[in-house]
Amino acid sequence: MKGVYFLASFLFLALASSFASASDPSPLQDFCVALNDTKIAVFVNGKFCKDPMLAKAEDFFFSGLNVPGNTSNQLGSKVTPVNVEQIPGLNTLGVSLARVDFAPYGGLNPPHTHPRATEILVVLEGTLYVGFVTSNPDNRLITKVLYPGDVFVFPVGLIHFQLNIGKTNAVAFAAFGSQNPGVITIAKAVFGSNPPINPDVLTKAFQLDKNVVKYLQSQFWWDNN
Amino acid sequence: MKGVYFLASFLFLALASSFASASDPSPLQDFCVALNDTKIAVFVNGKFCKDPMLAKAEDFFFSGLNVPGNTSNQLGSKVTPVNVEQIPGLNTLGVSLARVDFAPYGGLNPPHTHPRATEILVVLEGTLYVGFVTSNPDNRLITKVLYPGDVFVFPVGLIHFQLNIGKTNAVAFAAFGSQNPGVITIAKAVFGSNPPINPDVLTKAFQLDKNVVKYLQSQFWWDNN
Amino acid sequence: MKGVYFLASFLFLALASSFASASDPSPLQDFCVALNDTKIAVFVNGKFCKDPMLAKAEDFFFSGLNVPGNTSNQLGSKVTPVNVEQIPGLNTLGVSLARVDFAPYGGLNPPHTHPRATEILVVLEGTLYVGFVTSNPDNRLITKVLYPGDVFVFPVGLIHFQLNIGKTNAVAFAAFGSQNPGVITIAKAVFGSNPPINPDVLTKAFQLDKNVVKYLQSQFWWDNN
Amino acid sequence: MKGVYFLASFLFLALASSFASASDPSPLQDFCVALNDTKIAVFVNGKFCKDPMLAKAEDFFFSGLNVPGNTSNQLGSKVTPVNVEQIPGLNTLGVSLARVDFAPYGGLNPPHTHPRATEILVVLEGTLYVGFVTSNPDNRLITKVLYPGDVFVFPVGLIHFQLNIGKTNAVAFAAFGSQNPGVITIAKAVFGSNPPINPDVLTKAFQLDKNVVKYLQSQFWWDNN
Amino acid sequence: MKGVYFLASFLFLALASSFASASDPSPLQDFCVALNDTKIAVFVNGKFCKDPMLAKAEDFFFSGLNVPGNTSNQLGSKVTPVNVEQIPGLNTLGVSLARVDFAPYGGLNPPHTHPRATEILVVLEGTLYVGFVTSNPDNRLITKVLYPGDVFVFPVGLIHFQLNIGKTNAVAFAAFGSQNPGVITIAKAVFGSNPPINPDVLTKAFQLDKNVVKYLQSQFWWDNN
Amino acid sequence: MKGVYFLASFLFLALASSFASASDPSPLQDFCVALNDTKIAVFVNGKFCKDPMLAKAEDFFFSGLNVPGNTSNQLGSKVTPVNVEQIPGLNTLGVSLARVDFAPYGGLNPPHTHPRATEILVVLEGTLYVGFVTSNPDNRLITKVLYPGDVFVFPVGLIHFQLNIGKTNAVAFAAFGSQNPGVITIAKAVFGSNPPINPDVLTKAFQLDKNVVKYLQSQFWWDNN
Repeated sequence: MKGVYFLASFLFLALASSFASASDPSPLQDFCVALNDTKIAVFVNGKFCKDPMLAKAEDFFFSGLNVPGNTSNQLGSKVTPVNVEQIPGLNTLGVSLARVDFAPYGGLNPPHTHPRATEILVVLEGTLYVGFVTSNPDNRLITKVLYPGDVFVFPVGLIHFQLNIGKTNAVAFAAFGSQNPGVITIAKAVFGSNPPINPDVLTKAFQLDKNVVKYLQSQFWWDNN
Repeated sequence: MKGVYFLASFLFLALASSFASASDPSPLQDFCVALNDTKIAVFVNGKFCKDPMLAKAEDFFFSGLNVPGNTSNQLGSKVTPVNVEQIPGLNTLGVSLARVDFAPYGGLNPPHTHPRATEILVVLEGTLYVGFVTSNPDNRLITKVLYPGDVFVFPVGLIHFQLNIGKTNAVAFAAFGSQNPGVITIAKAVFGSNPPINPDVLTKAFQLDKNVVKYLQSQFWWDNN
Repeated sequence: MKGVYFLASFLFLALASSFASASDPSPLQDFCVALNDTKIAVFVNGKFCKDPMLAKAEDFFFSGLNVPGNTSNQLGSKVTPVNVEQIPGLNTLGVSLARVDFAPYGGLNPPHTHPRATEILVVLEGTLYVGFVTSNPDNRLITKVLYPGDVFVFPVGLIHFQLNIGKTNAVAFAAFGSQNPGVITIAKAVFGSNPPINPDVLTKAFQLDKNVVKYLQSQFWWDNN
Repeated sequence: MKGVYFLASFLFLALASSFASASDPSPLQDFCVALNDTKIAVFVNGKFCKDPMLAKAEDFFFSGLNVPGNTSNQLGSKVTPVNVEQIPGLNTLGVSLARVDFAPYGGLNPPHTHPRATEILVVLEGTLYVGFVTSNPDNRLITKVLYPGDVFVFPVGLIHFQLNIGKTNAVAFAAFGSQNPGVITIAKAVFGSNPPINPDVLTKAFQLDKNVVKYLQSQFWWDNN
Repeated sequence: MKGVYFLASFLFLALASSFASASDPSPLQDFCVALNDTKIAVFVNGKFCKDPMLAKAEDFFFSGLNVPGNTSNQLGSKVTPVNVEQIPGLNTLGVSLARVDFAPYGGLNPPHTHPRATEILVVLEGTLYVGFVTSNPDNRLITKVLYPGDVFVFPVGLIHFQLNIGKTNAVAFAAFGSQNPGVITIAKAVFGSNPPINPDVLTKAFQLDKNVVKYLQSQFWWDNN
Repeated sequence: MKGVYFLASFLFLALASSFASASDPSPLQDFCVALNDTKIAVFVNGKFCKDPMLAKAEDFFFSGLNVPGNTSNQLGSKVTPVNVEQIPGLNTLGVSLARVDFAPYGGLNPPHTHPRATEILVVLEGTLYVGFVTSNPDNRLITKVLYPGDVFVFPVGLIHFQLNIGKTNAVAFAAFGSQNPGVITIAKAVFGSNPPINPDVLTKAFQLDKNVVKYLQSQFWWDNN
């Protein structure tokens, strides 16, 4: 019985972890609903899925994108994502959404990249100054002021931002060409990584005094996602 | 000079046509802004693009998604697409949007497929009964009634529809995992093709009387896109 | 012992289901033979595979495509598929086959789509009227009458059909650019879904009387696959 | 006028060449019919296409796969390909066909690879001994004797062959997961390349006497495609 | 003659631009050698290619990766790229190289991303402190000190850097899973874009005093590529 | 208890095998570190991965590429691979490396293909005669003599080789556009497969006497990887 018990224990430990990866943009069946709540400690590129015969409408459903996000934070913005973590049915299907709320007078979705998706954004309310920067060597900044009903595109992997330059709240919906686009907030990733990057790197890279670098690395970096 | 003239004429003819195809979801540069207005009669998988140094903010921009579509038609619905035809900067970037308006009391976005994209839809106003049908052999119907803020997913290639079951207008935004998702409205493609399908095919396939088939083939089939 | 038993029970239940998905068209090893008969209730995009060292010739083999399918049914046709369900070695390899038999005088492979593959068909015997319909807005019908040795292509996702217009049996082989192309028979998916689609949707979409819709929804819809 | 003439001449030269490449397996429109007969000296990954509004049924059609190939050659086999070179409508659609004829008593489709496609083969007539070899380090040979109606799979990139071990002609249809699978006949590519490979390479690689290598390099290597 | 002249002029202007895009990682023919020097003002996803019959060994060749890069600059590093711009034969083939030289005592390849490729780096000489930061919300820093013969991987899209912490020059070779990986040097793209980003964005995003932001935006940002 | 024991035994057997496949070039999360040492007998396209929270620097690291490979063998060459088998963090990331050592006076990396990757090679020391052969029908040989600092490209799937034509050792680094490129050494796969290919196939294919074929099939074929 010992062998059985050992095996069972091993499996129990294995089953005690949780999933964290995303899913394939080329589905090989009608759908492959993610098992977000499974307890298996093994992962795949994307996510494991449930028996398709057990898929139900709720697997393809999310509620609450009409609720404003709380923008009472240092950036004055809040992203409400609707990707494969929120809708398991998005697994393998290559698309997702987000609602972005901005506080008046400067609410900011700070410079960031999505390593795995282009973003297309439509403004519902307010006035946004938005832009993206092309890659080296040109690093051209391409910007636009957007009003309700305006749509703008942020190509995959490029650094981009949105700033509320109006006196009222602003709201936008963003769609992504991936069920798990990923977010890298530049300032937070560079100055707020865990553990911190060697200050010699940041001092030389950003042409900053080392004391400023150390000060920045001691700050709190809010994640608005 | 004759040869020159001949060549020029040949090119002129060649330049007199227009583009009609879409673009690659795996960009090989920051972006590849489509040349929608070019006059070259040669096509590629996707679209030809302009010199990236000439790209400007307007290439990534569309205005007017706050304007309701006209739903005074036999289906009581109107789709306003924002894909690579409207935003040339979407070329190669694998994502697009649409606004869908529904008349009260039964405005319908009829059963259709997108051969090249999954759709994720968010309701802004109204009450929608939505659903999709899985492929053979099960053809399971998966449905949900959606209210403002609700999100639903329609997997790529599957037949789906949205019906306004409320007493007011309904509005939704839809995002697609392709810059050129394509639309095949089932009834229109089957009974309204040009030229018509041999009625023997439709009589047997739909278990309809041949007179009914011929009547349907003589009807007008509205394209709500 | 209770914990062990509980775990084992959980696993036993988990192992009691069966696979239903397909496999990746970009193999990352020589092959990845599908475990069609596994009892694991967890799925992936595509299928799990067996140890490649255990792969044997039978995993890449199917027998019987010389046997005519039984066309004694309401459509007068029968598809014999040879995809990843029949040949587990096709998993990840992105190709499959089918034999299609047609009864004389009108045997029909009714309008359908393959959401995940283009089809290329070669006629072995008989005379087929075949066609496909392009997507909106044009819905052009492109047709051809085929004789033995003729080949025709049906692009991925488009509605297409084949009708035996000869006085003898017809036989064709079809190849697909996917190990799991999927089939959506239009009439069956629309009028024979389970549960039925709200008749208001079909009445308006197909411009049919509601009684006709309800009659159609009560019919039996044969799946010729 | 000189500048004009120079330009025209440049273009004329440019237009005097012909296409030689294949097409993309992920279509971004319904289809993209190849311009096989164009005179442009510029190429793309895949092929340029014609105006989709000009596509016609013949673009998706090929005739003659019922005609036996001539096997009166040193290999006793003949492949009749039906890929994007024969059917321009296959461009971007990722699938193709071939008919393979074998002479009795040893007609051979010699060891070769398809660098861009898996092959699935169905036997129509005769008896074939077929096989493929896995990659290093194992180089396992997986073989099967096939009879009419039997199907076998040759995974992409692996060396494989078919030998007629019967007393009659043999015929098979093969399907490929690419519109341009490519063929590399091993012996011809190694010993019949143009110009020849340095004999030192082949002597050491094949453990052959240098005279044997030079003899082989002077032979005629039949291309059965 | 006027029409001819107009057309020729139009073409001349069109031909006066140059290519800037990259190429497809899924080749559809043996190779598709880029036309880097063409004068056509039209682009595709990737690059146009020359007639494959004209391809020659030099198209697949680059010389000089044994020459140290000049590290006498503010970062103390120099990247020598070997991608599709240097080797046109890399077009469509999905791989490229670079040599990276580092000055002693702190030569830095500053934090940057490659939006289209993972990097694998091997150290030839010297001692490098290298690292990358995972995406939100964790932003974990994963670092290692590398010596000659050591290899490290920087996953696609993640911010990473290399710092020479030794007293001698350091040299590394890097390989990329794209023929056009792209580079976004974080500090240069954010503080050195052209035109500058609205300082309100950077002040809030980086928690810096606006004067510091303006000072940084007035600095020169060296591109070590 | 018997059922439990049976299940546990089944699982134990299942867990006793090991992984052998590779990983997806389109990552769906930051990374997906391969579980090379797992004991699960089930595979996927690519490899299972560990919990991303447990990833550590060593998962992305390999040491020893500065150590010369032992070239004292019949080919006079040795390949030291650094792919997903050596660096589990390469899983899903689509790139890998190798060091190739050549003995003086004729050390040979014999004709072979990589079925899943293009190779880009840089010479560190020595003089190499390298080449590849295009596919049928042309089988053009494209060759170059390389010196230190020279770079050459071998397109995916094509037969290629490298020969040391100098009087000293030669060393090169090769990069591949796949984390699991695969190797098929032509002579070994054809004449050294296990079990041997029917000699009738090789006699006719290689235009060799059957005794020579049998002699070759009895030889030892060294795998330099």
